[in-house]
Amino acid sequence: MLDRARSAARALAGSTENVRREALEGISNALGAQKAEILSANAKDVASASKDGISGALLDRLILNEPRFEAMVRALRELISLPDPLSERRRIGNRPNGLEVFRRRVPLGVLAIVYEARPNVTIEAASLALKSGNAIVLRGGREASRSNAALVRAAQEGLMRAGLPKDCVQRVEDDSRKHVKELLQAVGKVDLVIPRGGAELMKMVDELARVPVIRHGQGITHVYIERSADAQMAEEIVFNSKVQRPGVCNALETLLLDEDWAASEAWPKLALRLVGEGKVELRVDSRSAAPLTARGIRCVSASESDYGTEFLSLVLAVRTVPSLNDALAHIAEHGTRHTAAIVTQDRQSAERFLQEVDASCVLWNASTRFNDGGELGLGAEMGISTSKLHAYGPMGLRELTTEKFVVYGAGQIRS
Amino acid sequence: MLDRARSAARALAGSTENVRREALEGISNALGAQKAEILSANAKDVASASKDGISGALLDRLILNEPRFEAMVRALRELISLPDPLSERRRIGNRPNGLEVFRRRVPLGVLAIVYEARPNVTIEAASLALKSGNAIVLRGGREASRSNAALVRAAQEGLMRAGLPKDCVQRVEDDSRKHVKELLQAVGKVDLVIPRGGAELMKMVDELARVPVIRHGQGITHVYIERSADAQMAEEIVFNSKVQRPGVCNALETLLLDEDWAASEAWPKLALRLVGEGKVELRVDSRSAAPLTARGIRCVSASESDYGTEFLSLVLAVRTVPSLNDALAHIAEHGTRHTAAIVTQDRQSAERFLQEVDASCVLWNASTRFNDGGELGLGAEMGISTSKLHAYGPMGLRELTTEKFVVYGAGQIRS
Repeated sequence: MLDRARSAARALAGSTENVRREALEGISNALGAQKAEILSANAKDVASASKDGISGALLDRLILNEPRFEAMVRALRELISLPDPLSERRRIGNRPNGLEVFRRRVPLGVLAIVYEARPNVTIEAASLALKSGNAIVLRGGREASRSNAALVRAAQEGLMRAGLPKDCVQRVEDDSRKHVKELLQAVGKVDLVIPRGGAELMKMVDELARVPVIRHGQGITHVYIERSADAQMAEEIVFNSKVQRPGVCNALETLLLDEDWAASEAWPKLALRLVGEGKVELRVDSRSAAPLTARGIRCVSASESDYGTEFLSLVLAVRTVPSLNDALAHIAEHGTRHTAAIVTQDRQSAERFLQEVDASCVLWNASTRFNDGGELGLGAEMGISTSKLHAYGPMGLRELTTEKFVVYGAGQIRS
Repeated sequence: MLDRARSAARALAGSTENVRREALEGISNALGAQKAEILSANAKDVASASKDGISGALLDRLILNEPRFEAMVRALRELISLPDPLSERRRIGNRPNGLEVFRRRVPLGVLAIVYEARPNVTIEAASLALKSGNAIVLRGGREASRSNAALVRAAQEGLMRAGLPKDCVQRVEDDSRKHVKELLQAVGKVDLVIPRGGAELMKMVDELARVPVIRHGQGITHVYIERSADAQMAEEIVFNSKVQRPGVCNALETLLLDEDWAASEAWPKLALRLVGEGKVELRVDSRSAAPLTARGIRCVSASESDYGTEFLSLVLAVRTVPSLNDALAHIAEHGTRHTAAIVTQDRQSAERFLQEVDASCVLWNASTRFNDGGELGLGAEMGISTSKLHAYGPMGLRELTTEKFVVYGAGQIRS
């Protein structure tokens, strides 16, 4: 299967932008034509998963209904309209000996993605790979196997209509862990594995991966409210960061309060909204607790481990710090390089925070929820990388490519 | 040690270009002031290595004499004059909601380099790391330990004069393999390991690495002489690629001949020069052999394994192929993504070769020996990456950095 993927990747590397666009158009058409079969395959997956008693959240992710199908096709149409990432050629310079040196953007080769039971990821990943000139091997969750089989059939039909090998998009049908291990260790056969999943998958990756991996890692996301922060703005940003969609990686997990700000009226007002309207459980240190308990606002004592936890739920850890230095030190110690925001009216503090915090996305006076490929203007994304190598933050089309040196000579030799 | 490196990396991340420049100037001054001690430490290393009977080639690499010391300082002065890689800020765009999105170039954090007994690499790696804002842990070969200790003392003096922590540059003093393993598995503590060494080190990396690694891998380098190639140009390029410095990774290992070209007078003429002036052993397939044996030119039969060998010596594998397609297929099968050149007068063939060959550097009508940071205009290099992720080809200052997203808001929240 991986040998076929390599051979397909070679065909893609020699393909033109027009051929790749035709293939993506072909996939869009095939999805339209095969919509009934795809939705019916998904209905079988959903029925079978319900019978097996999977959780409501997982079941919800598995469902591909009419509006979600249309959203999936719309996302593909938007991807088609993005500029071709492979047309970029940077001139590095002309050397004194007359050599002309360029860097030309090229595909990575063979990608593999290991993901859970969200069928729309199948088309998203396949189309991002094709647009960036890569072959891809998809290993989705077992629960979505009928849906994914139908979606991959549509993708392969689109490829063949454009004269590209159907093996540009392949699916691992057997869902045993053994194949995940094989993908992670396929040195020379897989150029990049993108694991998307929970702690168990990440542990497997840490232990077994021998090929390059870009982790879509956990986000212990911070907001720091500096003393000059506007009270209303701070409240809106914290509430949105925590409550709007608590189960995702760019949702807020730890709130850091400047001690003056924590002593102002703004903090109990914010806490009351979080606890009341937001239904958030606050886990606070003693300095953050005092103004709340004095007013009878519900909160519990934070343990040290709360500052190292990605809750992914309506729980928020809170700590009061004496200075920006302490906020920076806290984030350096507990952050996972995902997302951090500062709320302040003071440009100097903001610039220091933006420079010194080591995270894939740092924000000044904006919600952490903006660390997302679409929101940052990259178009579709393959995940958010917390690795610093190659991609840091949302991985768009460009991050699925690399640059090779291309040198034009006239017989130059080295002396 | 790695905790101290992390804390030093944080200081560097908050440093200005001026401070980094002062530190590099300080190192340059300290090297000048401590030249006598450094050369004397190196003389002890050399004496002790000679007594232990290391090979002549290794001994030569170990020696730091007056001219090599001056070249090392000159390279540092050149590095100081290069533009600051951390001043790059790319505007990604203004979003419809008013968010301003930038990408800002930032250091990777803590680097580790594992290398052999070349003391000049110590200063080269330390200064590349500093210029790019990274802390570095150096693990050099045992034979150079006195030299490296003296060089690191000078580097640390330069750092302290600029007010930076001396732990920005640290040396692993104990040279047991155990520490290499620890570096390769220091997840969260080391951001990138750069192994430079032989097959044994690379095997260790394949088996043990859990942190991101960029390999300075082996180069099975190809030249393809297309049928329209100018005979004289082809001869000069092949001779230079193979003979000028056969022991390095960008030296030629396999020559592919178009069958018409192989049947012309040009091939025996080139072969005669390689065998005679170049003292090269030719390992050829039967079609390449015929014109040579007919003229009594020395050659031996190639075995299939010769096409997968990095000789690093005056041995050249040769194969005749019917077409450009076959040349491309041979390189795809046997190449190590390092370097490949085509010699041709036909632009269409050249462009197809440049597009389809998957190698860090592809050249048209130029010697393979130009795949080198200095020759391609990057300035100093930390190695040549054959990994496709993050860096592909010579790794200069930019490749020791990454980009984070920096977002300027005015209270935006996500709806």
